[in-house]
Amino acid sequence: MKVEDIKNVTVAGGGTQGSQIASQIAYKGFAVTVWVRSEASVERARVRFATIKEQYLSTLEAMKTDASAYCRGLADTPDLSAEQIDALIAQAEERLSSIKFETDWDAAFGNADLVLECINENPQEKTEFYTKLSAHLPERTVILTDSSTMLPSMFAEATGRPDKYMSLHFGNQIWRNNMTELMRHDGTDPEVFELAAQFAEAIGMVPLKLNREQPGYILNSLLIPWFKAATSLVATGVCDAETVDKCWELATGADPGQTPFRKLDKIGLVLARNILSMDPAAKDPASGLAKSVSMLNGYIDEGKTGIAAGEGFYKYESYDK
Amino acid sequence: MKVEDIKNVTVAGGGTQGSQIASQIAYKGFAVTVWVRSEASVERARVRFATIKEQYLSTLEAMKTDASAYCRGLADTPDLSAEQIDALIAQAEERLSSIKFETDWDAAFGNADLVLECINENPQEKTEFYTKLSAHLPERTVILTDSSTMLPSMFAEATGRPDKYMSLHFGNQIWRNNMTELMRHDGTDPEVFELAAQFAEAIGMVPLKLNREQPGYILNSLLIPWFKAATSLVATGVCDAETVDKCWELATGADPGQTPFRKLDKIGLVLARNILSMDPAAKDPASGLAKSVSMLNGYIDEGKTGIAAGEGFYKYESYDK
Repeated sequence: MKVEDIKNVTVAGGGTQGSQIASQIAYKGFAVTVWVRSEASVERARVRFATIKEQYLSTLEAMKTDASAYCRGLADTPDLSAEQIDALIAQAEERLSSIKFETDWDAAFGNADLVLECINENPQEKTEFYTKLSAHLPERTVILTDSSTMLPSMFAEATGRPDKYMSLHFGNQIWRNNMTELMRHDGTDPEVFELAAQFAEAIGMVPLKLNREQPGYILNSLLIPWFKAATSLVATGVCDAETVDKCWELATGADPGQTPFRKLDKIGLVLARNILSMDPAAKDPASGLAKSVSMLNGYIDEGKTGIAAGEGFYKYESYDK
Repeated sequence: MKVEDIKNVTVAGGGTQGSQIASQIAYKGFAVTVWVRSEASVERARVRFATIKEQYLSTLEAMKTDASAYCRGLADTPDLSAEQIDALIAQAEERLSSIKFETDWDAAFGNADLVLECINENPQEKTEFYTKLSAHLPERTVILTDSSTMLPSMFAEATGRPDKYMSLHFGNQIWRNNMTELMRHDGTDPEVFELAAQFAEAIGMVPLKLNREQPGYILNSLLIPWFKAATSLVATGVCDAETVDKCWELATGADPGQTPFRKLDKIGLVLARNILSMDPAAKDPASGLAKSVSMLNGYIDEGKTGIAAGEGFYKYESYDK
């Protein structure tokens, strides 16, 4: 299969990730069906999709007058006239409105060229999903998973088509943060790997290729040790969070928002605490890591869970959120 | 002692760090003496100081017309008129020319308000230096060490004045990268810690305070785990250096030069290899760290040691150097 042959894409799951991914794929002109388990899920998903459509339309509108509103996933260049943006708005309105919702397996998957799996991060649920899916899917169909914490080799057999299965991992606000990480398992067909990269580009994403499985992909493999180092310095009393951030900013020329503790506030202290707790080294109470977890718990107990809560390591006014 | 009482500063050592630090202190109006061991060292130091003076003068000159030439250590604001810059140039010419060189201990240290130790990173040499120094130094004098790899507690007793001793650690090209890290040991007088911070500001530096000893200070505590993570990804075959850099750039909005492998090329692969080899985990040949060291050795063997060599992980044209 070539990327030109991909017409019908089915996104399994209409949660936070599924709704963003499905919207972006539709925005770029593919026929998108969203499969969810029940009519109740359809109703919940419709609300999410409506919100995302509003974000697409308002972001495009803002791009007319505000250079900083430009999102790489929405247009290849920031140099667009108001007329060109109006055309994109009309197109987005039409395409995002044409997303179909299905609960029936055959209706959702029977003619899919590509499936993007965005269901819960639960290994048993995923295995059951893939096993059932294989009975409803044409032979040609490629399956990509957005899983952020699991490796494709865990489910390759359950899909019944290990050669046509791999990870295509998205971030958050993908129309703005248009980075995807592609991870193959040993049995993924190299042509499928290439096809997935081309598909990622076709939907406005930058594909970053991982040639073998790596828990945490590239980004979290870099971010987590950096967070651990930063939180250990503060949790062990070496210095305060502002000093760590100032140091990174001065030494690397990073924007003030791109420093360790500003980033932690952005991703949220609960998620950060959960990630840091997973490391076995956190079990030694004398370790910097254990002290980091305990420091984060202190903030969480006080409700200071990050930007979304208005306060984390820093205080935020509403306009920063 | 208050920061206003600091008039005479003696810098011990006229090497790369000593010459930059002494020049910057003189630039900001202090009377600077440089102590070195021999007349031969004086001659070598004079050459280095002349080169640095040229860099100060040409950078100031460039600041007249090129906004990107602005160095925070040279002026508090980038908004200076050509006349104001000419005044700074005349002042720099005069002040940097008035730096004295001494090999005699009493002449160099007998009237110093503050000593900045920038001699070799050799513990025995430093201990001997401090022991001898204490006999030539007024009681009031504060001693600061620029050591990047050793902790002040290692030498506090040898100075004979542990309460007036701590680290003030500088980077490279300090007139541009005007960050200093201040590290106290348990016995450092809090007033001396505060005085050192004020002195750092008085010489145009941003003081970053460490309230207790931490090997690697703040910056290297953050950078080294980040480098380890980045090199492990490439050395274990997950992806290539360009992909890691692209990922960091896209996800954090960092400038292209501020990504892991660009940074490694900048600091040099030999230094990076030496730092990574120090970690005991590098002894396990199956570890990502051991594979990282071996990958770096491969580049070093081919002469690809970084920007200074014209090639590291990337190739550089001369204008990038």
